[in-house]
Amino acid sequence: MNLMWVMEFIGTFAFAISGLRLAAAKNFDWYGAYVVGLAVAIGGGTIRDVLLNTTPFWMTNPIYLIITGVALIYTVVFAKYVVRMKSAFFIFDTVGLALYAVVGVEKTLSFGFPLWVATGMGLLTATAGGVLRDILINEIPLIFRKELYATLCILGGLVFGLCQKLGLDILWTEVISFLVIFISRILSVRYHIALPKIKSKVGESAMDDFE
Amino acid sequence: MNLMWVMEFIGTFAFAISGLRLAAAKNFDWYGAYVVGLAVAIGGGTIRDVLLNTTPFWMTNPIYLIITGVALIYTVVFAKYVVRMKSAFFIFDTVGLALYAVVGVEKTLSFGFPLWVATGMGLLTATAGGVLRDILINEIPLIFRKELYATLCILGGLVFGLCQKLGLDILWTEVISFLVIFISRILSVRYHIALPKIKSKVGESAMDDFE
Amino acid sequence: MNLMWVMEFIGTFAFAISGLRLAAAKNFDWYGAYVVGLAVAIGGGTIRDVLLNTTPFWMTNPIYLIITGVALIYTVVFAKYVVRMKSAFFIFDTVGLALYAVVGVEKTLSFGFPLWVATGMGLLTATAGGVLRDILINEIPLIFRKELYATLCILGGLVFGLCQKLGLDILWTEVISFLVIFISRILSVRYHIALPKIKSKVGESAMDDFE
Repeated sequence: MNLMWVMEFIGTFAFAISGLRLAAAKNFDWYGAYVVGLAVAIGGGTIRDVLLNTTPFWMTNPIYLIITGVALIYTVVFAKYVVRMKSAFFIFDTVGLALYAVVGVEKTLSFGFPLWVATGMGLLTATAGGVLRDILINEIPLIFRKELYATLCILGGLVFGLCQKLGLDILWTEVISFLVIFISRILSVRYHIALPKIKSKVGESAMDDFE
Repeated sequence: MNLMWVMEFIGTFAFAISGLRLAAAKNFDWYGAYVVGLAVAIGGGTIRDVLLNTTPFWMTNPIYLIITGVALIYTVVFAKYVVRMKSAFFIFDTVGLALYAVVGVEKTLSFGFPLWVATGMGLLTATAGGVLRDILINEIPLIFRKELYATLCILGGLVFGLCQKLGLDILWTEVISFLVIFISRILSVRYHIALPKIKSKVGESAMDDFE
Repeated sequence: MNLMWVMEFIGTFAFAISGLRLAAAKNFDWYGAYVVGLAVAIGGGTIRDVLLNTTPFWMTNPIYLIITGVALIYTVVFAKYVVRMKSAFFIFDTVGLALYAVVGVEKTLSFGFPLWVATGMGLLTATAGGVLRDILINEIPLIFRKELYATLCILGGLVFGLCQKLGLDILWTEVISFLVIFISRILSVRYHIALPKIKSKVGESAMDDFE
């Protein structure tokens, strides 16, 4: 499955870049930037593996740490291209999102958990790294206020389960789930489709305790 | 133990509501609000189970995700009632606090750990979800500055151990520990009893490094 | 290995104090301060042990919770001395940093992982507690913007591996790795050696999505 490896590397690279750019905006040094890049690249999968009670995936293969290192060198050397290539990175990032979600679903099912757990784990694999990034740079997680991002991972998980029910082989199941997430995210961003905000009335006086 | 289930659901519901309200105050969308609600509802127990090196409790039963979903629908549909029912939710929240603490103590003891570990785990079960919530909404955790909240969970753990020493059966041990936490929290809020602040002199120049 | 125990206690004490001081600066109560102190003292080792899929070290020996309690009492009673003893605490903190790193490397190797994983775990053991502290007090982690701190832990891990390759016994390996981290940190702070910042050009428009 050479193609899947290539896609995983592209996704990891794009995820790391998103962390590196925000670290730069916050004036981090190289080490801080590397950690934030790594948090996006491996954070979601690490939380998944901890919950599955298994050894985190990156502890058995240094490639993820290396890719993040390459991303760091790339952003330091080619700073201005990183900013200009915004739309390319959006595509790469969506590859990462869709692939991580599919990988998370598949790994969780292979541990014998039911589809609803696997779907949640796919979502976690794809998005928890970004949440960790936003905590480390001391911002409110982006994903909680923008885009359909998360919802699409849930859709992908359900499609994965449906494909299996229909008896499709694993390769087709992966490809279809991947494409459903990939295409629906591109469309949702293109047409500014978003979830509604939760009614602010509910929040009235909720912050009182914080002074 | 039907009553205990009912109480656990009430506690989970109240915990989720506390997350949903703060998410609304921060302008989160439905997904973000759901995640914050879920963080309060299952965060503490998840950290406990990870430290106990066992599968997180919510991965074997979808009820906690469902209750949080119901809480989300409830807050969206009945926004204004949520705000008005403040004192009812305070009671529910205290039910959750006391019950989660007792459940945490009991589960940890069943894994063969001594009482001091179990007491810490009870505390973690009851309070870590709220800390996670405050990290996700980018605020300083409320529990570190207000109320006796945490201290009462420690008291509950010690009472649990005492009841066992005295040879009480498990049901009475649970009920007494629960009531000690429940009643003492209501009294501590009613009479504004709080822990002293740590002397600010100690903090002098501590923040210098952060600029 | 009596000396190693004494050093571990000194390091734990100094780590706890760093959390307690910042908690005081943020107006936390005793409980909040204790939790932040504990986060620095045991946070890194706990994350290491969760990733190694083993029981967190502090759950088998209450000494770490007790040392943090002593540090709390000390800061409450001797507030002004804590501030004055700044340079002593810098030395203690460096002892903690170097020792935690060495302990983390050694424990990870004993689980059969290769040196690159062990070095990462040494780094995590020594620094993740401080990152956790900064998240709890709602600040951007200090370590991502200041000092060579982290880099020196990586150096220490590599020296540890080199000593083993050279066939040195475990005691000498520990002592040399410890001293390399300890001395290089003191020198790096003395001569203001720091990592470069990541180019801010890369960060341009990165924060746009956050509004």
